[in-house]
Amino acid sequence: MKKITGIITIAVMCGGVALAAGDSPAPLGFSEQEGADQLALEAEFDRRVNPDNLDMWMQRLTAEPHHLGAPGTKTAAEAMAEAFRSWGYEAEIETFHILFPTPKERVLQLLSPEPYTAALVEPAIEGDRTSEQADRSLPPYNAYSADGDVTGELIYVNQGIPADYEELERLGLDVKGKIVIARYGGSWRGIKPKLAQEHGALGVILYSDPADDGYAQGDAYPKGGHRNQDSVQRGSVIDLPLRPGDPVTPGVGATENAKRISREDSESLLKIPVLPISYNDALPFLKALDGAVAPDSWRGALPITYHVGPGPARVRLKLAFDWTLTPAYNVIAKLEGETYPDEWVMRGNHHDAWVSGAADPVSGMVALMEEARIVGELARAGNRPARTILYAGWDAEEPGLIGSVEWVEQHARELDAKLVAYINTDGTSRGFLNAGGSHTLEPFFGQIANAVMDPHKGITVGERRRKLLRLIGSEEQKKALDAGIAYPLSALGSGSDYSGFLQHLGIASLNIGFGGEGGGSQYHSAYDSYDHYVRFGDPGFLYGAALAKVAGRATLRLANADILPFDTEAFTRTVAVYLDQVTGLADNMRKETAEHNERVRDGIYAAVADPSEAYVPRIEKDPVPHLAFAALENALAKLRVSSAAFDEAAKNLAEGGANISKRQQAELNRLLYRMERKMIRAEGLPRRPWFVHHIYAPGFYTGYGVKTLPGVREAIEQRNWQEANQQIDILANILTDIATHMDQMTTLAEDLSD
Amino acid sequence: MKKITGIITIAVMCGGVALAAGDSPAPLGFSEQEGADQLALEAEFDRRVNPDNLDMWMQRLTAEPHHLGAPGTKTAAEAMAEAFRSWGYEAEIETFHILFPTPKERVLQLLSPEPYTAALVEPAIEGDRTSEQADRSLPPYNAYSADGDVTGELIYVNQGIPADYEELERLGLDVKGKIVIARYGGSWRGIKPKLAQEHGALGVILYSDPADDGYAQGDAYPKGGHRNQDSVQRGSVIDLPLRPGDPVTPGVGATENAKRISREDSESLLKIPVLPISYNDALPFLKALDGAVAPDSWRGALPITYHVGPGPARVRLKLAFDWTLTPAYNVIAKLEGETYPDEWVMRGNHHDAWVSGAADPVSGMVALMEEARIVGELARAGNRPARTILYAGWDAEEPGLIGSVEWVEQHARELDAKLVAYINTDGTSRGFLNAGGSHTLEPFFGQIANAVMDPHKGITVGERRRKLLRLIGSEEQKKALDAGIAYPLSALGSGSDYSGFLQHLGIASLNIGFGGEGGGSQYHSAYDSYDHYVRFGDPGFLYGAALAKVAGRATLRLANADILPFDTEAFTRTVAVYLDQVTGLADNMRKETAEHNERVRDGIYAAVADPSEAYVPRIEKDPVPHLAFAALENALAKLRVSSAAFDEAAKNLAEGGANISKRQQAELNRLLYRMERKMIRAEGLPRRPWFVHHIYAPGFYTGYGVKTLPGVREAIEQRNWQEANQQIDILANILTDIATHMDQMTTLAEDLSD
Repeated sequence: MKKITGIITIAVMCGGVALAAGDSPAPLGFSEQEGADQLALEAEFDRRVNPDNLDMWMQRLTAEPHHLGAPGTKTAAEAMAEAFRSWGYEAEIETFHILFPTPKERVLQLLSPEPYTAALVEPAIEGDRTSEQADRSLPPYNAYSADGDVTGELIYVNQGIPADYEELERLGLDVKGKIVIARYGGSWRGIKPKLAQEHGALGVILYSDPADDGYAQGDAYPKGGHRNQDSVQRGSVIDLPLRPGDPVTPGVGATENAKRISREDSESLLKIPVLPISYNDALPFLKALDGAVAPDSWRGALPITYHVGPGPARVRLKLAFDWTLTPAYNVIAKLEGETYPDEWVMRGNHHDAWVSGAADPVSGMVALMEEARIVGELARAGNRPARTILYAGWDAEEPGLIGSVEWVEQHARELDAKLVAYINTDGTSRGFLNAGGSHTLEPFFGQIANAVMDPHKGITVGERRRKLLRLIGSEEQKKALDAGIAYPLSALGSGSDYSGFLQHLGIASLNIGFGGEGGGSQYHSAYDSYDHYVRFGDPGFLYGAALAKVAGRATLRLANADILPFDTEAFTRTVAVYLDQVTGLADNMRKETAEHNERVRDGIYAAVADPSEAYVPRIEKDPVPHLAFAALENALAKLRVSSAAFDEAAKNLAEGGANISKRQQAELNRLLYRMERKMIRAEGLPRRPWFVHHIYAPGFYTGYGVKTLPGVREAIEQRNWQEANQQIDILANILTDIATHMDQMTTLAEDLSD
Repeated sequence: MKKITGIITIAVMCGGVALAAGDSPAPLGFSEQEGADQLALEAEFDRRVNPDNLDMWMQRLTAEPHHLGAPGTKTAAEAMAEAFRSWGYEAEIETFHILFPTPKERVLQLLSPEPYTAALVEPAIEGDRTSEQADRSLPPYNAYSADGDVTGELIYVNQGIPADYEELERLGLDVKGKIVIARYGGSWRGIKPKLAQEHGALGVILYSDPADDGYAQGDAYPKGGHRNQDSVQRGSVIDLPLRPGDPVTPGVGATENAKRISREDSESLLKIPVLPISYNDALPFLKALDGAVAPDSWRGALPITYHVGPGPARVRLKLAFDWTLTPAYNVIAKLEGETYPDEWVMRGNHHDAWVSGAADPVSGMVALMEEARIVGELARAGNRPARTILYAGWDAEEPGLIGSVEWVEQHARELDAKLVAYINTDGTSRGFLNAGGSHTLEPFFGQIANAVMDPHKGITVGERRRKLLRLIGSEEQKKALDAGIAYPLSALGSGSDYSGFLQHLGIASLNIGFGGEGGGSQYHSAYDSYDHYVRFGDPGFLYGAALAKVAGRATLRLANADILPFDTEAFTRTVAVYLDQVTGLADNMRKETAEHNERVRDGIYAAVADPSEAYVPRIEKDPVPHLAFAALENALAKLRVSSAAFDEAAKNLAEGGANISKRQQAELNRLLYRMERKMIRAEGLPRRPWFVHHIYAPGFYTGYGVKTLPGVREAIEQRNWQEANQQIDILANILTDIATHMDQMTTLAEDLSD
């Protein structure tokens, strides 16, 4: 007989925020005896984590530039594959062929009133050894900018997000035929040129304002860690929220002989040129603007009065790229499971960078390497995992999550069948544990956060995070703590390699890192270097080691659990919160629209406008109708019933002490991990069929930022009331299907209890 | 028979926010016939207002520096007195002798790490003609700084207000033995050195950060109107919220032979040196600071990372002053009333400036001159006012409201007996009507705001203000509009010449100006010039003319009303709002204190603190007891009853058509205007007996900023619970006395109705 305690301890043990450090509740999904074994295994895992190994790997991986296509990237991939093999893994390099542009020509000139040619370089810094490798590095550029040579008046659009274009309209201005300058921030960078293009701009300049990550935040590099006058944020501007991955092999793996569409036919490629610059390069351009003074919230920290323009500044932007099919080297290592070899748990981090990439991605990659080393050692010492564990070092993440997406597309059928969960990291630094993921894993992850100690504070990383939320968390996060959630997971949008797994295949995922006390970031700059990281990011690799313990535990527990620790209640509770948000969103928009329209009718905007400034008459908006939320409310009610019924059945199963075979366990486990598959729908979201998950998606106009219940939420935000009602019905059906799936789980659990 | 309609029209006519522009409800306090005459008189007044006269007077008054003691000041006073005489007034210059320091020596040096000597000058600007008069002007300094020669480490304290010292304590820092640098803003300037001194600083540097009034707000002078790199805010640092006026003649007029105390014995003088500088001068000092990075909200707009220090910057500040008894020339003009010569209405503005003072104070002074000219003309044409009108051009306002305060102290007995109300202005610019004052005058002022047209917008200045409040007003202001208040008056703190009248004698007061669209201020700088004002402040003097119409109406209506338009309901309603605020303040502090203490006990602050930074353990605060507010609630209930009873009696009196003699009217009027006297109490506020008003006072630690119900509110803010309960009782007695006074008014009105 095998008494499975874990499955019912969720409410009793996991939720309790009062768990003292050092408490060791039985891990969810384990029987009593095997739970004790697992905890002993984890203690042994912790003992073997050695920060020096992270340091050594970081030195190796950051020694040479290792962007997609760089010689150093292939070398690094081979070194990692070799290491995996030495630790007992089957390891291979799986290569894809990616359309990847690199710059041939970059020219940015202020033509008038005062001519200036942008330097577009990040000079070497004394004390930063790899900053001298500019000859072998990718210079500052935005990958998947179009080629182009455009000249026009300059206009400043703040962050270039939808709200900024609304403000421009109020100012009576537009970007048509102009070159836009936007500061980073407020959205994923690719949204900025996408919107500029939609509004008719000729080209786009992106720059890092010191207000956002420079001297206004803290001392600049090398005195402090923050972005300095020359530091540039590189990055992709492929249309990530439309579809990540290789732009010319939509939906299929970019193998050597894959069918490719033309660049012109690729929906995810821009038609206009875009270039990122430092604030030293941006200052002459911004100074040369006149016209309206920028609205308060548009002003950065440069010592000027920010003007919107357009003009009198005239600008030339000329960009040309080599568009080359470039090999991407995914490192895939496998340790076959002893009991359930066809149930897989995957752990990944990308290895490609823009330049040295010490923080992004190497700091996460080196934690993964240390985890894999120890898991391999433990297996050889007789603790082979029950399920198969896969480790991935992805290439081509920076250009658009391409290495992982192509791999996911190539192996979709097998992953759909076998992959239980995917655990991602992508850089880490000093500070607090930040985790997002599938809420079916929320209680599971809460236990893990409560099992790993903060390296400085004498409390667990879960406890420290809860104390932070008590101080500065949102009302929703505080409510979650009050409800006994040990670690309120955030929802996943996009921006790293979990996207293909979660949003394209419906595989439950986690994304984990530490941060918040890293003392300044050189995100996507040549100064994101080893020398920077060990001074500011994570001196001594203490938080890197803590990350290895968190991610290592998550991997091992998922690999070894008798019953997979997927939770119905946490999911149901979270969906209820999201539903409250979207109904509240519609209500607020209705109220604000009515108020706005009343103000227009009362002449308030016209009366209050400064008579010395241009005034564009404000117009009434279409009123917000009441949406047919009843279908969703009913589906949620059904979900609640089904979730509670499964909880009850699982409790009886655990307490009943039934004798469950491995086959029966596998049957129940298969239903459990396939619950997340029910959240997807083959047709996908409106206008972006690649994204099929209907609980989590990246925002179409925010990029990385998540939109939960995306079909409904974005239809409301876009004031598309008809689509909102359609999406409400679609989502109601999905929730009903999930409830039905839970009912199957309940039936099986009841059968097994008999 | 004389039917007085005005007195009951408050609720019916005045409150209505729907009053269309051009509506002319009978003015409050006038009989029907006389109301019509009054409106005709005001129409004639408006016709005679000529912006060219404001322009002419501004050119005359700003041609020479006219600070206290400057030759140009005496000339200006004489020219104004002569003009008043030419318009039919008895006019005199009443001279007081004021202790006034002017700089002999000003030295500010950064000694290390990089030596720098502050320039301390405002250079001439092309196109600003008076900026070339530095040889005849007062240089940048803070009047009533102590003499001193101090050297010490520098420390940045943000705005140097109480919350900043709490933050310093959390950082484990203090200012003892150091020289403090603080930016302007967040309080009246005198609070900054007062607090620095209380905390043991050796000296203080004040500077204007471009975040607050420089390039971050708009283009700097001369391109735009905002403060530039060299512009310095001069100003007094006498202890204004303790006691305004001459520092060595407390409580009595500073006549030539007045008894004077020594400087050492004056409580309102600082013991440490303080100097204001430009941001160009401040930058090397701020750059030389290291230590903790300044908290987010402390960061200004200079292109540096703001550090707190202390040090490594070491600073020397050496200041020496001539402390001279200086003649101050108050210009007082009188037009005797025809019917009630011993009931006075007074209208004032100061004429002294720091340099040219085009905006402050001349822009208000020239409106007053135009009003007086027209009132004189109208009197000669047969419309002599019923009451006596006094016009004042105050000297020595800038050093500490001294000209008006000495005059008030000198004439206290007569003013107490005769002065019905005081109407102040002190500079104006383009924009919205801003008015503060005694809430007994709120309905009266609402009618006036509804009678004057905005020069650009085709609506009244009252209507434009209401539309602004609908858009960006506080919840309290919106509620007031909902309740039908046409112009919600703000409460008066300090910062101009109404202070002596209102807060020392209990004379109902108004303070009026336009503003908000002035395009940048050169407050207390040499660049507050005619050339600046006519480009940015009020081109064409259109809002100056509107101000003359508002203040002229207020003066004439108060001078001519049959029954003085003091209102009991508006006062009672306002006190109820303030009482809500102070009980809410105590409740919030109780809640926040409990929350804070719980966080301390839970170790939240310690757990969340960055381990790489110094952490000062947070300690529990004394819990906030429940205060004995019942006495105040009961007094308010009584006030409500008495106020309603008077309203009823006044209505009956008006409708009854009783035949009321001038003597009877005078008796009722005397009770009406003396209602404000009941708000004062001879003992004054704790620790500052000069301030005797218990509804309105400047904040002891905010300076200009008002504290309503100050005895109670400040005791709570200072966590002095015993004093809070004492002040609750005192205020309850005052409200009860006011209710009793209203009862007397009711009895008289009932007697007259019989």
